[in-house]
Amino acid sequence: MKIYFATGNQNKVNEANIILKGLEGYELEHLKIPYAEIQGTLEEVSKVGVKEIYNKIKKPVIVEDSGFFIESLNGFPGTYSKYVQETLGNEKILKLLKDEENRKAYFKTIIGYFDGIDLKLFRGEIFGSVSKEIKTSGFGFAYDSIFIPEGQNKTFAEMTTKEKSDISHRKLAFYKFKSYLESKVK
Amino acid sequence: MKIYFATGNQNKVNEANIILKGLEGYELEHLKIPYAEIQGTLEEVSKVGVKEIYNKIKKPVIVEDSGFFIESLNGFPGTYSKYVQETLGNEKILKLLKDEENRKAYFKTIIGYFDGIDLKLFRGEIFGSVSKEIKTSGFGFAYDSIFIPEGQNKTFAEMTTKEKSDISHRKLAFYKFKSYLESKVK
Repeated sequence: MKIYFATGNQNKVNEANIILKGLEGYELEHLKIPYAEIQGTLEEVSKVGVKEIYNKIKKPVIVEDSGFFIESLNGFPGTYSKYVQETLGNEKILKLLKDEENRKAYFKTIIGYFDGIDLKLFRGEIFGSVSKEIKTSGFGFAYDSIFIPEGQNKTFAEMTTKEKSDISHRKLAFYKFKSYLESKVK
Repeated sequence: MKIYFATGNQNKVNEANIILKGLEGYELEHLKIPYAEIQGTLEEVSKVGVKEIYNKIKKPVIVEDSGFFIESLNGFPGTYSKYVQETLGNEKILKLLKDEENRKAYFKTIIGYFDGIDLKLFRGEIFGSVSKEIKTSGFGFAYDSIFIPEGQNKTFAEMTTKEKSDISHRKLAFYKFKSYLESKVK
C-alpha cells in the first residue's frame, strides 16, 4: 500500500523512509501539496490538515508538525515555533529566560495519519532544558542551538546529524507510526 | 439585506451596530458559528475564514481579526497576539523590549466580507508605541495597558471605553466597511 507524506521538505521524507525501511507492504511517497495549518495545538493542526488532504486525494496520507515548548513560558512558542523563530529568534528567547531558574523545555512531533477510516496521531517528544547561551558546532537549525537534551552536556546543534536524529522527537514519532503499520499488517 | 457577523463576542456586534447605525437597507446579525483560523497574516485568516462560513450559510457574512504588531520584533506577536498574551503576557513583552529604543507598535484590524461574489477586506490601524511599564486605570484588556497611541500620553487602558473606541483600529475598519456598503446602495 502506498502512503503519501504531505510536506514541502524532501529531507523529512528521506528520514522517514530510513525508519520505515524493511516494513513490508508499505511504501512512502513524497506529496507536495499545500494544506491549511490552523491555529491550535499541534494535534489539532495535524488532524485538520490530514483530513483536508485525504479529502483531496482519497489515498492514505500522513502529515507531520513539530514544536518547541518552554515550561516557564506556558508552552510558548509551541505550535508557532517557526513564526517565533523568524520574528524573535534565539537571542530574544534567551532574553525572555534571563534570571529564570526553570529552564525545562521539550520538542514534540505529531504525525497525523488518515486513510478514510482510521485517523491516528503519533507523538514523539524529547525533554531537556534551554541553555544559557547559544551553542552550535554548525549543525541543526532553529531552536537546536539553545536546547540541551536530558542527560547530555551539549546542545542539539553541537551534535552531528546522526547523533541528533538517533534521539530525536521526530524519529520517535515515526517509530510509533511504524509499529502501528506493523500491527495493521498482522 | 441581512449581513451576518461571525464572532463569539457579542460586544463586537454591539460596537459594529453602533457604527453602522443609520445605514439604510442593511442589518447586522450575530452569528455564533466556529470557523478555522489558519496560521498566516490577518488578511489571510480573514479571507479563508469568511469564505468557509459563506460556504456553510450561503449568506453575506463578515469576520473580524485583530493583532498587535511591534516593529523591533519584526511584527511579533501579530496574528498570534491572543496566544502570546495568554502565554507570555505583557511583563514578558516589556522584558523583550528592555533597552530597546525603537518602541514603535500598532494595532491592526481586518474585516473580511464575502457575499458569494464580492470578497473585500477592510483595514483599520492605530499607530503608537510600547510604554516602559504596564499602566492601567482598569479599562481595556490584553495589550491595552502597554500601548500609547501617537499624540497621547496615556495607554489605551488608561482611557475610558469611549475615549478608546473613538480612535480604535476596529472602529476605523468598520467605518470603511460602512462606506463600502453605502457605495453599494448608491
